[in-house]
Amino acid sequence: MSAPEAERLARVGLSLLTEPGDAQVAAVIADVGAQVLYDDVLTRQEGSEVRQDARSRLEGCDPARQLEQAARVGLRFVVPGDAEWPTQLDDLAHTAPLQQRGGAPLGLWVRGPQRLDGLGSSVAVVGSRSATTYGGSAAAQIAAVVARSGSPVISGAAYGIDQAAHRGALGGGGTTIAVLACGADRVYPQAHRELIEHLGREGAVVSESPPGGAPTRVRFLSRNRIIAALSAGTVVVEAAVRSGALNTANWAIRLNRHLMGVPGPITSAPSQGVHQLLRSGAATLVTSGQEVLEVVAPVGEHVLEEPRGRERARDRLSMRDQQVLDAVPVTRGAGADSIARTAGMALLKVGPALDRLRVGGYVERGEDGWRLAALAQE
Amino acid sequence: MSAPEAERLARVGLSLLTEPGDAQVAAVIADVGAQVLYDDVLTRQEGSEVRQDARSRLEGCDPARQLEQAARVGLRFVVPGDAEWPTQLDDLAHTAPLQQRGGAPLGLWVRGPQRLDGLGSSVAVVGSRSATTYGGSAAAQIAAVVARSGSPVISGAAYGIDQAAHRGALGGGGTTIAVLACGADRVYPQAHRELIEHLGREGAVVSESPPGGAPTRVRFLSRNRIIAALSAGTVVVEAAVRSGALNTANWAIRLNRHLMGVPGPITSAPSQGVHQLLRSGAATLVTSGQEVLEVVAPVGEHVLEEPRGRERARDRLSMRDQQVLDAVPVTRGAGADSIARTAGMALLKVGPALDRLRVGGYVERGEDGWRLAALAQE
Repeated sequence: MSAPEAERLARVGLSLLTEPGDAQVAAVIADVGAQVLYDDVLTRQEGSEVRQDARSRLEGCDPARQLEQAARVGLRFVVPGDAEWPTQLDDLAHTAPLQQRGGAPLGLWVRGPQRLDGLGSSVAVVGSRSATTYGGSAAAQIAAVVARSGSPVISGAAYGIDQAAHRGALGGGGTTIAVLACGADRVYPQAHRELIEHLGREGAVVSESPPGGAPTRVRFLSRNRIIAALSAGTVVVEAAVRSGALNTANWAIRLNRHLMGVPGPITSAPSQGVHQLLRSGAATLVTSGQEVLEVVAPVGEHVLEEPRGRERARDRLSMRDQQVLDAVPVTRGAGADSIARTAGMALLKVGPALDRLRVGGYVERGEDGWRLAALAQE
Repeated sequence: MSAPEAERLARVGLSLLTEPGDAQVAAVIADVGAQVLYDDVLTRQEGSEVRQDARSRLEGCDPARQLEQAARVGLRFVVPGDAEWPTQLDDLAHTAPLQQRGGAPLGLWVRGPQRLDGLGSSVAVVGSRSATTYGGSAAAQIAAVVARSGSPVISGAAYGIDQAAHRGALGGGGTTIAVLACGADRVYPQAHRELIEHLGREGAVVSESPPGGAPTRVRFLSRNRIIAALSAGTVVVEAAVRSGALNTANWAIRLNRHLMGVPGPITSAPSQGVHQLLRSGAATLVTSGQEVLEVVAPVGEHVLEEPRGRERARDRLSMRDQQVLDAVPVTRGAGADSIARTAGMALLKVGPALDRLRVGGYVERGEDGWRLAALAQE
């Protein structure tokens, strides 16, 4: 299944003409369709300022040539109607804008073998660029477990948590996808060239911005909504009070996706934003990849047992016998009367209890009286 | 106001006879009263085994003398009906037992100037004996803020979080109270002699166990319910999966008190139990003493503002002007056409935006074109 060629070309043209995540443009397209809007911009003659703008920017732009050029550098443009279109993005069309960004994207420019229609169980792992060693290691561990379970990991390509998430997912032998604010043919930050090239060969590098697009601040905001919308749930690992990751978190909330937060030391600024999300009840506290999978999994899958302490031998005793056992000394032996006083119990009760404990191997009787046996000292 | 002397003596006698927190004894007393039960034990002649036990243990025990002896070491026995009785403990009478411990205490043995009837807004700060440096410092900081605000801090006297909580409260210049599992005349652990003596002079050392009572395991379980019941809320700072602090947390839940948890690194075993409490929704995540006060305070007091990042100059700009500003280089200047391409906007829009930004002091025009002014680089 593939979208009609005219539809794809119209979306390429509009993608060159408009800013990613322009909520007003998206609303018009949702209303009249991409082809109608594109033809209208191209052909109507009356000279409103906006139209003049648009036409001036389309001069020298040929959508078909743009697609060819993109294909030469390994980029495809996936649009609604394509079999590969991730239909969960359509949720964006029904979601109110945030900071004037919103709406479904015109399409996604993609580089890499990973298809976008198989991301239903994917998990976004996001957080601060200025992550701590703790945060990076937490992100990598969580991403590794998620990826190993077969759920793709989605993140940006920034320093800090993003990078750690991809590294963890690759280490876990799973699929990982970077959604960029710049064109999917570009590398930003430069220091992550190797990582981004690797994802372009093994996973996918995705962008709503056309090839060559620069990574501007508004495009990061627009990009964040794509990360949240593609994923079944978003995990925020570290985020200071004013962090882009909280923008992604807001999108996850708006889109009714699962939102999760990894706690950290209360003394750590990069954990402060996460703690706010947890305190407000917007996010679920998660401490491991298993817990993340439990949150995003369909009901009944990935159910975890609550961690429990190791059961100790003494737990199998009655409360009264435990009370007597507590009063038996470890090293020097003691008489039953002394044990009864320590336990605050009648001698009458303590005698039979000591016998039961001896049979059970909890206490032993030496020349100097009763003392603990090895079992009770576990 | 003071309880009748016969009532007090009956409760002293029963306190010598029974284990603290024996839910069955507490139920009988709630039903027939302490005096009736005590007289019955003393006077009825038929020889059930339990009665024989009781009488044998009461031989040589004179409640009046016990009170005198206690008074000589600075201990008073506070019982229901006394003006000093902390009536919030009566909630225990209506609460189901936990691990066979439960019920209101017969009375509390108290050493120290702090009265027990002024603890309505007090906060219990509890946690692992094997606390980390992080946990100890978090406990001390939270206790200091709580104590400084005028709310007493309540804890045990163990190593780790207990000790840190008292230390913090004392540093904050506030009241702090230790509830012991052993008799209030005893010191356990020995290493905390100085701390416990100090609390006995400045705050209060409290126990349900009679003077001389040994610190047995069941008495710690009984003691935990007193800590939870005395306080308006309990903060668990660090607690491994199998920690006594979780027993106190369970009591706080049963007693409908506020339960709070301090998060920590997901890699830290002593935070694992706290994270479980937070994940289950039983506890509220807190990261500071102020947040604790906000939770336990009556509605409208101690309301906190959400922490916010510093507002930056650029936040006052329209989204379009921000978009242009993002495309202006920091060092070498650039022409408006180059900025328009980077911003992905029409030159027609970029010119006026640059002028607005120059007037606002965000950008400046040099010989080589536009560049950022100092304000925008904040």
